[in-house]
Amino acid sequence: MITVLRLGHRPGRDPRVTTHVTLTARAFGADKVLVSTKDPVLERTVRAVVTKFGGSFEVETGVQWRRVIETWRGPVVHLTMYGEALDAVLPKIPPGEDLLLVVGATKVPRDVYDLATFNVAVGNQPHSEVAALAVFLDRFLAGKELTRTFAGRIGIVPSKRGKTVVESESSHRNR
Amino acid sequence: MITVLRLGHRPGRDPRVTTHVTLTARAFGADKVLVSTKDPVLERTVRAVVTKFGGSFEVETGVQWRRVIETWRGPVVHLTMYGEALDAVLPKIPPGEDLLLVVGATKVPRDVYDLATFNVAVGNQPHSEVAALAVFLDRFLAGKELTRTFAGRIGIVPSKRGKTVVESESSHRNR
Repeated sequence: MITVLRLGHRPGRDPRVTTHVTLTARAFGADKVLVSTKDPVLERTVRAVVTKFGGSFEVETGVQWRRVIETWRGPVVHLTMYGEALDAVLPKIPPGEDLLLVVGATKVPRDVYDLATFNVAVGNQPHSEVAALAVFLDRFLAGKELTRTFAGRIGIVPSKRGKTVVESESSHRNR
Repeated sequence: MITVLRLGHRPGRDPRVTTHVTLTARAFGADKVLVSTKDPVLERTVRAVVTKFGGSFEVETGVQWRRVIETWRGPVVHLTMYGEALDAVLPKIPPGEDLLLVVGATKVPRDVYDLATFNVAVGNQPHSEVAALAVFLDRFLAGKELTRTFAGRIGIVPSKRGKTVVESESSHRNR
């Protein structure tokens, strides 16, 4: 099981990046996202996507991040541009254990660096926690997450041009 | 050369996602970002990062997206959840040609699907253009982009704990 812990989310101010973090977690194979700030709007948005597109993904906001990290049973991986190279750390992460992936916004409390089992850099350049999360999961799960089926009410059928959407009533729409 | 064309950016309303797109493009091996809406603030933000962290990355806002796509010499890849599977398309993209990667926000004009050489889905689930861009580039460049050096005024040294920043005056700071 893979859980993502999102730090530094500011509801109202920049809702979209945390939405991107959460939907990326879901699409790339994580099972749950915990957000350190309470945000009912974010919860509703994500649950609406899950209802529509399927899967058993969970979201919980307003969690105590320190308690989550300190009581976690399994490796805690903090994604940061200051960390060790992804290639160097990946083989060290024990497989089959519950993984906690910590992603921050601009400022992450110093304690997180000490509490994490691994501080991992997806490149040592400034970019985006969304990008770091996606590439970490893609590499960690060896690309297999992209071929998972979610069996939702709505499904997308890969298409060369346009949009092919299948609804669970088996009605085909080509828009 | 790899250029990213960003559509649907709304300055002021959601500046951060386009900043994430742009910095992700730079960190994951693209050479330039074109944004279809004029945004001097975004340009300044990105240029400040380039000045500090190095490389020759360029950003240009207020471009005519249709003209860019129509006059492009080389493959045009539109990243969309409705497209063909990434694994299926990657081997078809001719190497060594100038690549234009198109990423949208919520709504992308229908014409883009027709004008693109390939419509590519990084998974057929809703997530994030930042994630799609990062994973596409990581797969397209076979992970080599993460080990590139940018030779900037500021450099990050991979570290197990904390932050090791090197400045070009060779002064080491461990914060």
